[in-house]
Amino acid sequence: MNKPQSWEARADAYSLYGFTDLPSVASRGAVVLTHGEGPYVIDVNGRRYLDANSGLWNMVAGFDHKGLAEAAKAQYDRFPGYHAFFGRLSDQTVMLSEKLVEVSPFERGKVFYTNSGSEANDTMVKMLWFLHASEGNPQRRKILTRWNAYHGVTVVSASMTGKPYNSVFGLPLPGFIHLTCPHYWRYGEAGETEEQFTQRLARELEDTIQREGPDTIAGFFAEPVQGAGGVIPPSQGYFQAVLPILKKYDIPMIADEVITGFGRTGNTWGCQTYGFMPDAIISSKNLTAGLFPMGAVILGGELSDRVQAAVDKIEEFPHGFTASGHPVGCAIALKAIDVVMNEGLADNVRRLAPRLEAGLRAIMDRSDHIGELRGVGFMWALEAVRDKATRTPFESHLSVSERIANACTDLGLICRPLGQSIVLCPPFILTEAQMDEIFDKLERALQKVFAEVA
Amino acid sequence: MNKPQSWEARADAYSLYGFTDLPSVASRGAVVLTHGEGPYVIDVNGRRYLDANSGLWNMVAGFDHKGLAEAAKAQYDRFPGYHAFFGRLSDQTVMLSEKLVEVSPFERGKVFYTNSGSEANDTMVKMLWFLHASEGNPQRRKILTRWNAYHGVTVVSASMTGKPYNSVFGLPLPGFIHLTCPHYWRYGEAGETEEQFTQRLARELEDTIQREGPDTIAGFFAEPVQGAGGVIPPSQGYFQAVLPILKKYDIPMIADEVITGFGRTGNTWGCQTYGFMPDAIISSKNLTAGLFPMGAVILGGELSDRVQAAVDKIEEFPHGFTASGHPVGCAIALKAIDVVMNEGLADNVRRLAPRLEAGLRAIMDRSDHIGELRGVGFMWALEAVRDKATRTPFESHLSVSERIANACTDLGLICRPLGQSIVLCPPFILTEAQMDEIFDKLERALQKVFAEVA
Repeated sequence: MNKPQSWEARADAYSLYGFTDLPSVASRGAVVLTHGEGPYVIDVNGRRYLDANSGLWNMVAGFDHKGLAEAAKAQYDRFPGYHAFFGRLSDQTVMLSEKLVEVSPFERGKVFYTNSGSEANDTMVKMLWFLHASEGNPQRRKILTRWNAYHGVTVVSASMTGKPYNSVFGLPLPGFIHLTCPHYWRYGEAGETEEQFTQRLARELEDTIQREGPDTIAGFFAEPVQGAGGVIPPSQGYFQAVLPILKKYDIPMIADEVITGFGRTGNTWGCQTYGFMPDAIISSKNLTAGLFPMGAVILGGELSDRVQAAVDKIEEFPHGFTASGHPVGCAIALKAIDVVMNEGLADNVRRLAPRLEAGLRAIMDRSDHIGELRGVGFMWALEAVRDKATRTPFESHLSVSERIANACTDLGLICRPLGQSIVLCPPFILTEAQMDEIFDKLERALQKVFAEVA
Repeated sequence: MNKPQSWEARADAYSLYGFTDLPSVASRGAVVLTHGEGPYVIDVNGRRYLDANSGLWNMVAGFDHKGLAEAAKAQYDRFPGYHAFFGRLSDQTVMLSEKLVEVSPFERGKVFYTNSGSEANDTMVKMLWFLHASEGNPQRRKILTRWNAYHGVTVVSASMTGKPYNSVFGLPLPGFIHLTCPHYWRYGEAGETEEQFTQRLARELEDTIQREGPDTIAGFFAEPVQGAGGVIPPSQGYFQAVLPILKKYDIPMIADEVITGFGRTGNTWGCQTYGFMPDAIISSKNLTAGLFPMGAVILGGELSDRVQAAVDKIEEFPHGFTASGHPVGCAIALKAIDVVMNEGLADNVRRLAPRLEAGLRAIMDRSDHIGELRGVGFMWALEAVRDKATRTPFESHLSVSERIANACTDLGLICRPLGQSIVLCPPFILTEAQMDEIFDKLERALQKVFAEVA
């Protein structure tokens, strides 16, 4: 074939696009990016976009952080790659594991590295299956998650994800059970208080465990705030209601902190924001501030002891990825943790979160078609509705959130359409002026699209 | 607990080691590495090791390649991270996809990025399930692979892997079918010629397809040379016998070139070395010369058209990893392809492969306990046996290959124990003098261990 010439045509010719609305690309062309400045990204045509999506939640220090780039570059000069098999590993890997346990909510624990959150969740499932079998319970294989959960895209982590789109792959696999999403505004019943809603979900959990058989359940996974489900904080008291039930049936509770970890909710971990203690944490994304693909399973002390005892019995844990614990990724993560926790980024989230919430609430209050504002810290969603009183959504063929996102892009603002909502999760370096730019452009885009569809 | 002080104790305290012989670590301590020089790695105690394992097959340009580090560093200064969702992607990603199709055996095609070979195989399975369902064949879900195959460690790619150790996870999942490993020396029957062996395996494939039902098979995956199975080249004529059968039943043939891709066998692709054309290629490892976690599914023209048509029907392919097509990984891969193909590395493999084979063959001929030398290009295995004539292996409790690998490590040579064999897959930059160092240290280690166990 003739070689395509433009950047957009070259992108189309050789890419199988993932998680991309193809009609939007067909009508508007791909956006091919060359570089970044703070929270802005710039395309091949010189257009600038304020990326209020932090890339994919992960570029929390923006797109040209000097200190992070220096850490990466220094490690590329020092030791540009190794694995962590056969009892050989880099010094950076040892230091990061020590640091991760130190900053975790656990008093002690152990770390296993992967290249993504998907792989970390998939690994955790394998670890649980391995552990239960080793302890004489090979039938403990079912995995409990919730609707609207997002845990990744490997076959298993997609099976954990509670999204209808996975049916095109014939997923979920059997044995992956999805409980009700703890979104009171949308799933609360008429006359039901938020507390009653939470209690109903706790009863559903216990009923499910009893129906399936407690000795068939391998573990329960939950994001402290559901991220790609559309920024859904738990209903009041949710984790306090759920955890005692899991404990009663000896079901490990895994917090998927891929999005919420390292500052997004205003604390280091989402489980701290919502006051609960999991048995293990899944980390990724912010872990390297988006500069390197990395995931980590952080096992708390008790679960770590049990898994290590199971491994000791067979003298080798037959699992690991080639780039698990890559020295460059570990050097970047060590720096990213320091930058977020000690160089003002986490402080900035705590300081500006109320201002972000207030600005978005004002936009909601001025609009007839924003039904709910929800979120915490630096992760928020505005839910579009045709009718605010009845919470009736727009017809899905209108693709209202895609239209809003495209209208924002035209104005130089990147935000993310998720279902009928618009998600904002800006980099932690955001200034007040940049926040005002988000408010201004978002509101103009909402007004334009609502005028067309309402 | 008291904080451990030594590097080795710190490694033990916080690591859940993967693919590690724990008795070896317990008796010898972890090896904590700080940096590299050419094909050598150096530990915290200043000890140097010639890494004849190229890290994990992947560090083909060694451990301090200046040009690769410069490419990584330049991209960290330019654009240190982005995703490839929503029709937005970096210029580096566009350029790499174009380059991958150009250097592939396909005339045209499309690329989908992941962070590892595991994710790429897992993705390919999802793509096949999606494609068949879209084409009206949702029952086409079974995956055919071979015993001793290694395709990764996610639940699905581990299910594809044909290794008994996966039973500790309760794997493989149902529907993953393992055919006979095409290793004539080990699995050929008494009196059977290599050609007859190949024909028997072809019949087994066709019998299996007919028994399972041709319309239940999603795809057939094969490494051109089995890598982590212990470097097993196919028996004579294997792919020529297998491919017509797959074609007859419309079963896509996927070449897992994670290890063999980009020069390891002496050609760019293993499928070129063995003279066959797959429908898609799985790439990773050498793709970035080990400097960045990256995998890629490269779809050939016909399969690419079918998958794209299936995606177009639903307007979005709901799959993708956060770091899919990461700009730094793509910039490194562009440079790595250039370095391997145009800066003498592939040439060095072709030039020195006969010398490597001859040296290892001489070691085998001088030993009473090496039963087979097998391999191609820069990937070889020596199989230890108690009795050469009867091919009787050493008793497994002797851990003979672990002992050989440990004896090599003591001499400053890293090679890999796999089953009863010792694998050598040195970096492509290896000199003749370094090759002689491998021969010398390996032979001394073999003599020492065989004197102990024989």
